[in-house]
Amino acid sequence: MKWNVYLSGEIHTDWRQRIIDGAREHDLPITFTSAVTDHVSSDAAGEVLGPESSGFWRDHKSSKVNLIRTKTLIEKCDLAVVRFGDKYRQWNAAFDAGYCAALGKPYVTLHDEDIIHPLKDVDASAMAWAKSPDQIVEILSYVIRAR
Amino acid sequence: MKWNVYLSGEIHTDWRQRIIDGAREHDLPITFTSAVTDHVSSDAAGEVLGPESSGFWRDHKSSKVNLIRTKTLIEKCDLAVVRFGDKYRQWNAAFDAGYCAALGKPYVTLHDEDIIHPLKDVDASAMAWAKSPDQIVEILSYVIRAR
Amino acid sequence: MKWNVYLSGEIHTDWRQRIIDGAREHDLPITFTSAVTDHVSSDAAGEVLGPESSGFWRDHKSSKVNLIRTKTLIEKCDLAVVRFGDKYRQWNAAFDAGYCAALGKPYVTLHDEDIIHPLKDVDASAMAWAKSPDQIVEILSYVIRAR
Amino acid sequence: MKWNVYLSGEIHTDWRQRIIDGAREHDLPITFTSAVTDHVSSDAAGEVLGPESSGFWRDHKSSKVNLIRTKTLIEKCDLAVVRFGDKYRQWNAAFDAGYCAALGKPYVTLHDEDIIHPLKDVDASAMAWAKSPDQIVEILSYVIRAR
Amino acid sequence: MKWNVYLSGEIHTDWRQRIIDGAREHDLPITFTSAVTDHVSSDAAGEVLGPESSGFWRDHKSSKVNLIRTKTLIEKCDLAVVRFGDKYRQWNAAFDAGYCAALGKPYVTLHDEDIIHPLKDVDASAMAWAKSPDQIVEILSYVIRAR
Amino acid sequence: MKWNVYLSGEIHTDWRQRIIDGAREHDLPITFTSAVTDHVSSDAAGEVLGPESSGFWRDHKSSKVNLIRTKTLIEKCDLAVVRFGDKYRQWNAAFDAGYCAALGKPYVTLHDEDIIHPLKDVDASAMAWAKSPDQIVEILSYVIRAR
Amino acid sequence: MKWNVYLSGEIHTDWRQRIIDGAREHDLPITFTSAVTDHVSSDAAGEVLGPESSGFWRDHKSSKVNLIRTKTLIEKCDLAVVRFGDKYRQWNAAFDAGYCAALGKPYVTLHDEDIIHPLKDVDASAMAWAKSPDQIVEILSYVIRAR
Amino acid sequence: MKWNVYLSGEIHTDWRQRIIDGAREHDLPITFTSAVTDHVSSDAAGEVLGPESSGFWRDHKSSKVNLIRTKTLIEKCDLAVVRFGDKYRQWNAAFDAGYCAALGKPYVTLHDEDIIHPLKDVDASAMAWAKSPDQIVEILSYVIRAR
Repeated sequence: MKWNVYLSGEIHTDWRQRIIDGAREHDLPITFTSAVTDHVSSDAAGEVLGPESSGFWRDHKSSKVNLIRTKTLIEKCDLAVVRFGDKYRQWNAAFDAGYCAALGKPYVTLHDEDIIHPLKDVDASAMAWAKSPDQIVEILSYVIRAR
Repeated sequence: MKWNVYLSGEIHTDWRQRIIDGAREHDLPITFTSAVTDHVSSDAAGEVLGPESSGFWRDHKSSKVNLIRTKTLIEKCDLAVVRFGDKYRQWNAAFDAGYCAALGKPYVTLHDEDIIHPLKDVDASAMAWAKSPDQIVEILSYVIRAR
Repeated sequence: MKWNVYLSGEIHTDWRQRIIDGAREHDLPITFTSAVTDHVSSDAAGEVLGPESSGFWRDHKSSKVNLIRTKTLIEKCDLAVVRFGDKYRQWNAAFDAGYCAALGKPYVTLHDEDIIHPLKDVDASAMAWAKSPDQIVEILSYVIRAR
Repeated sequence: MKWNVYLSGEIHTDWRQRIIDGAREHDLPITFTSAVTDHVSSDAAGEVLGPESSGFWRDHKSSKVNLIRTKTLIEKCDLAVVRFGDKYRQWNAAFDAGYCAALGKPYVTLHDEDIIHPLKDVDASAMAWAKSPDQIVEILSYVIRAR
Repeated sequence: MKWNVYLSGEIHTDWRQRIIDGAREHDLPITFTSAVTDHVSSDAAGEVLGPESSGFWRDHKSSKVNLIRTKTLIEKCDLAVVRFGDKYRQWNAAFDAGYCAALGKPYVTLHDEDIIHPLKDVDASAMAWAKSPDQIVEILSYVIRAR
Repeated sequence: MKWNVYLSGEIHTDWRQRIIDGAREHDLPITFTSAVTDHVSSDAAGEVLGPESSGFWRDHKSSKVNLIRTKTLIEKCDLAVVRFGDKYRQWNAAFDAGYCAALGKPYVTLHDEDIIHPLKDVDASAMAWAKSPDQIVEILSYVIRAR
Repeated sequence: MKWNVYLSGEIHTDWRQRIIDGAREHDLPITFTSAVTDHVSSDAAGEVLGPESSGFWRDHKSSKVNLIRTKTLIEKCDLAVVRFGDKYRQWNAAFDAGYCAALGKPYVTLHDEDIIHPLKDVDASAMAWAKSPDQIVEILSYVIRAR
Repeated sequence: MKWNVYLSGEIHTDWRQRIIDGAREHDLPITFTSAVTDHVSSDAAGEVLGPESSGFWRDHKSSKVNLIRTKTLIEKCDLAVVRFGDKYRQWNAAFDAGYCAALGKPYVTLHDEDIIHPLKDVDASAMAWAKSPDQIVEILSYVIRAR
């Protein structure tokens, strides 16, 4: 069986690449998917449909175009990894976690120790909390290889 | 028909009370529900089950006890109002929004203009964005009274 | 058992009132629900949330506020009556019919004989096609009273 | 991942082909599906089962045979494009949009600016509104290629 | 808790009444529901919508009107009793049993010993097989009164 | 797309083979599935688990073993063909039809004209009624080939 | 809102009564439900349907009659309490916990510290683990009274 | 069609291997899946995420990591075999059976005659009860090969 893992959240560090590389090193049969992680493209996703004068509707239009992708990929995944950094508010990451929880889709969180308290409700529905991409790779390897 | 409205998010201002008061003034047939909004009680929700030496598990235990309440009430509501303030990270509010979205449960957001951009993905799945409790009351009144 | 019947579609004739009156005359235990049927109010449903310069977004905002009501009422109904007149395009009525079909919610259509052909796909998933409000009342009476 | 896109609605212009050609030019991994778009065949779909004297039942029988195809394909698609032209009533397109909405299946609409108002409820549940097949192709390309 | 019990199948003997009377004697909190059990009315259920020249469509129209009632009541019931007599084919009773099975709705069958073999697949998904209305009443009493 | 068609019902004539042969002649991409159609094997399906002294439990055990197969195949099919002959009671065919109906799975019936009336409730939820295997093949060809 | 709490598991001690009494003392709006807890009656639940010579089928028949009750009550509950004692195997309690988990129904476990390890998989999907009926009452009070 | 069979329960005897070997001998198209069956690895599944001082949380963390695997595999299987030995309490096996039952996922049990009574509720929702791996292989062969 090929596993489908969705990587949600923070786009400013290389955590996605480190997990993907680690999985490749372990030769794990995983297809990784993600939202569009290029910030500028993502914010402009709706522009092809015409310009907007209001910032709210510009964001709205782009978010919905992005949602076609993310909603589809989350609903197809077997597991999501949801990453929270310490700088940004990343409400979309928490939103994705809630979305997974309601679908009964397992997810694990990836964040530092200093944000345990504000993330407690997100962690409460998670299957695991990891502090590093390496730990995520270990978990993936164990879960898939069964050893 | 009696409507069931869940009030999610920020607990530091009186927005809940203002919506509840407004609905009462309009004599709207609404049952409002909420998480436990007393911060100290909520953080200590799991303590009756015994002390924990680790902060993570203390939070975890309390969050899950709270989840018995919030999950049940969200799944029973007809509409959720999700409030974001400007100070805290309120990941639980974004989590609740994602949970509603996945269930196909309609929600409206309540937040100021200066956080439109970070909330764009949460707003993209919402039925409306309001800036004040009064606007929420107006929406509720229109939706329920049909005028 | 009290039945819940949603009346969807055309708002320019008195078909809703005729069904409601007929049901009252037969003393049928029905709660009738509907979208907001006042055209001007319905189009302006989103205005309380602030003005829009673009016609598209003005309509969008109002439609979503209306959707809070209609989605909730359709999902709670036991049966929908979907009415098509000959003048307007009433895409929202066909949308409601499709919505009911996907939910497995029974609906009956109400329209004249001259639009049988363009409505064939909407009728194909309906439980019945009626030509007059009186026929709808007869059907309701039979279904509920069992005679 | 191969995407599955259902093309619903108007059958009098070449919009389907333009989207299919555009997707091929961009080398997008999409399987496009559709109802039977030949008008005469579609109307006669039930004839193999025997003749009908009544126009209503002839249409009914054909629509249900067509429904075997369309219902299956819509339920298997990842995204639907719903096209409204200016001439016909296309209630089946609006029906398909409602069907998608109830299933939580994302769809985008394709129509001119002059029918924004009558389509407002169909657009309110859509992920995007496009005015040309080229815009649809751009959206598909962005959503699938993530750039 | 009030129980909702649907009585499906054969309409030529007084089994429904015997169960209803027995439940009343035991003072069980049950609402019993049923299809329209008057054969002539049931066959003519669609006639108010206009005459049909074809027997197939006359039956079709009536069956669908009846389905508004039966589908709704079955989906609302907590338990169904499905009765097979020895004379008629009662395909609708077997259909109801299959419908319940797919919904995960518990049902019990009521039939004589001589039709065990042809009913084996219907009995295989049932919670119990009873031979008399009295046994059904005993089961209902035990299940509801818990003694 | 490869279609998955489940053939349910009567096992005494060659209707299954005629549909399979017809589909092969039309080169249709269909996987046909079925219950075990050998009557003796099917009745003895549970015997490997040990003998039973009671006829009811022998049937029960075999039916449940068969159900592992039929339930799985029906839930995986895109379309079911449900065949009723004139000799046997075939309650399992009507059960399968009800099962499909509750799952929203399209099915077509195959039976002669003289049993229209007792099958009216089974036909009311079907997408089509055919009188011969050839008609079924034509329908399959049209639905899949779209012409 | 009135809460519905299902009490599953061990029937040899007075834990159910202690929870019910505690809830009454706190004046909590709870309806408690349970399987039939009288061991002899429960084992004989199917006897009214006729005697069985085989122990397996006697148990089978009774279990299914009991299942009408337990399945219905579990599916209607808002929360389940699942109790494991140290003496018996209580596979039905673990079965109920798995049933709740798959439905997304919250449950809490009630057991002593010495069986933590064998119950780890049952606890992993629970919302809380309590050691005494008093703790359960405290949790119920907090969850319902929100303080 | 390739079948997907999940093997749940007791890990101290070679029943899994015997079923897998038997299926290979019969050349059955089955993918077998399982939890991690190495007891030590399974208990330590969460250790990569950091040490725990409390036994409860160590078990909890490991169980949840294991749950990522088991939940995913159970939800993807077509059939589960649930094995109970006579020595251990195997609450996880009963939990898996309940999980399958709630999902409508067919399962068969595998256990000796002397634990029929305590397993009666688990068996009541099963499709079959087998006493030996060979019987399981026979059932699989019959169900898949249809003879």
